[in-house]
Amino acid sequence: MASPKTRAVSLTEIETLALTVFRAQGCDEGNTTALARTVTAAERDGSVSHGLFRVPGYVASLRSGKVNGSAKPKINHDLASVISVDGDMGYAPLALETGLPVLADAALKNGIAVMRVVNNFHFAALWPETEYLAERGLMGLACTAFKPTVAPAGAKEAFFGTNPLSFAWPRPGQTPLVFDMATSTLAKGDVQIAARDGHDVPEGTGLGPDGQPTNDPAEILKGVLLPFGGYKGSAIAMMVELLCAGMTGDYFSFEAGVHDNNDGGPAKGGELVIAISPQLVAGEGWQKHCAGFFDAISGLDGIRLPGDRRHKNRLDTGPRHINAELINRIKDLC
Amino acid sequence: MASPKTRAVSLTEIETLALTVFRAQGCDEGNTTALARTVTAAERDGSVSHGLFRVPGYVASLRSGKVNGSAKPKINHDLASVISVDGDMGYAPLALETGLPVLADAALKNGIAVMRVVNNFHFAALWPETEYLAERGLMGLACTAFKPTVAPAGAKEAFFGTNPLSFAWPRPGQTPLVFDMATSTLAKGDVQIAARDGHDVPEGTGLGPDGQPTNDPAEILKGVLLPFGGYKGSAIAMMVELLCAGMTGDYFSFEAGVHDNNDGGPAKGGELVIAISPQLVAGEGWQKHCAGFFDAISGLDGIRLPGDRRHKNRLDTGPRHINAELINRIKDLC
Repeated sequence: MASPKTRAVSLTEIETLALTVFRAQGCDEGNTTALARTVTAAERDGSVSHGLFRVPGYVASLRSGKVNGSAKPKINHDLASVISVDGDMGYAPLALETGLPVLADAALKNGIAVMRVVNNFHFAALWPETEYLAERGLMGLACTAFKPTVAPAGAKEAFFGTNPLSFAWPRPGQTPLVFDMATSTLAKGDVQIAARDGHDVPEGTGLGPDGQPTNDPAEILKGVLLPFGGYKGSAIAMMVELLCAGMTGDYFSFEAGVHDNNDGGPAKGGELVIAISPQLVAGEGWQKHCAGFFDAISGLDGIRLPGDRRHKNRLDTGPRHINAELINRIKDLC
Repeated sequence: MASPKTRAVSLTEIETLALTVFRAQGCDEGNTTALARTVTAAERDGSVSHGLFRVPGYVASLRSGKVNGSAKPKINHDLASVISVDGDMGYAPLALETGLPVLADAALKNGIAVMRVVNNFHFAALWPETEYLAERGLMGLACTAFKPTVAPAGAKEAFFGTNPLSFAWPRPGQTPLVFDMATSTLAKGDVQIAARDGHDVPEGTGLGPDGQPTNDPAEILKGVLLPFGGYKGSAIAMMVELLCAGMTGDYFSFEAGVHDNNDGGPAKGGELVIAISPQLVAGEGWQKHCAGFFDAISGLDGIRLPGDRRHKNRLDTGPRHINAELINRIKDLC
């Protein structure tokens, strides 16, 4: 929505702005275009907390020397269903663009495959990777960690990252079913945006620095977020830690908290992506079977399928309304 | 705990009772011993709603002719990392005992493998399968559906099953980290037990037949359960539907609701089990790396790791205190 605080910017202008800033900050062409694609796709889909909002953080990590803007990701594929990508201390988008086609081919051939990404800095949504797989007829599951931000159920101390988990299911001829959610009550980016815009956050989102529940996002940013859904959501957040760190060998959130230089950018970490072919596992007829499921659930009153709002936003080719101050900050970095 | 309503029964007596009742009801020896092992393991671990409590339902499904007590599960293993088990319209325990060793071998060799189980009636916990994998050095993930019992977030109508999800992580030399949770606020068995014992259930557990929230388990059993954690838990419940039905070709919960004969036993459905080897994916050092994680989280105030209470119960070789009326019911079936 337009407001005095926002400016109307076309998707092409958004991409150009992103390309310009990453080039200006010394990224090589491969990393620049991968980053700009990721930022633009987020703005296109209305995934605002992963769009231009992230650019100052990306830049901070280039300037601090933490992230390699000319990273050349390397693939190891010794086992047919295991793909290992070393991100060469760069940002996730190029590492993922390098590994995902290999992962998809492996799953389409072998039925299931897993990709481990390490030495990598992830600062974006996860749906680009799971949607990539779903658009190729595969189920995609991806997760990554962060720095300590979330208190496990029962504790008052930050230990888990916001630990997002994304799942996509293919619907050939249609947009996939996709969710991508922090395993905290809210994503940290959403809490930051609420603090910036002066909005309260819902009950139960987090604890202030005194360990007491609060609706003030600024207090929560000084305290801790809580996992969604109490001890069950906390178990899911722990599973994410084990998959993206235990199963990759890269940092758990608590380790990233120790090693990160806190430059405002992403922390180093691992990502795990699993791809499974319903064609090879369930066999013929899976598509019709699942279409029946989507028809049935869509017929219930009060239902909105995850991913639908984003895919609807995607159809809008008009300008996006971006925080004016953010645009000025990014232009200053170009 | 002992009470006038319970009777102290040793684990051996529990297993003998289970063996006797399944033999008396016409199960063959393979199915009888697999079922009795499952029931006894649940009572041993204090997983009460999956122990003897389930026996009358198992028997009802044998008597109605829905389930084949002499099922001979068949394995197909054409792709190295995809195992398919047809349960021959029998109970899950024998199908799982047949498939799990093949799944574990495949994952230990190939890094990742998936098992699809179909034509199968699951009425037990899922931790026996995920723990089996974790005890062999593998991550295990398993899920299954049920009949419509849970309203997706936003709806007031039952559509999802209670859709349990279990995850186990290997800790060689120690019990694995395991969770096994319904994606509803409570498992249906726990609501049934609360209704039987006259206890209220927590706020938000479900809706009565009028679509309004209630703490009365009997009203919820006539209405619907809710997913844990609002729309995020609802997304996880949907993922479970797609994995255990979309990825197997067996019934979604809404289909099971149409086809089941409502004899009080389990509904036919699919199960998906994924196994991944941290040794082959993360590589050397994974064990020490993860031990550091478990040490760190265990050091936080207020934390109890999932599975710990069950593994503690397991160390108790003494008698279990079983509802006396339940024992009498089962004896009448022998």
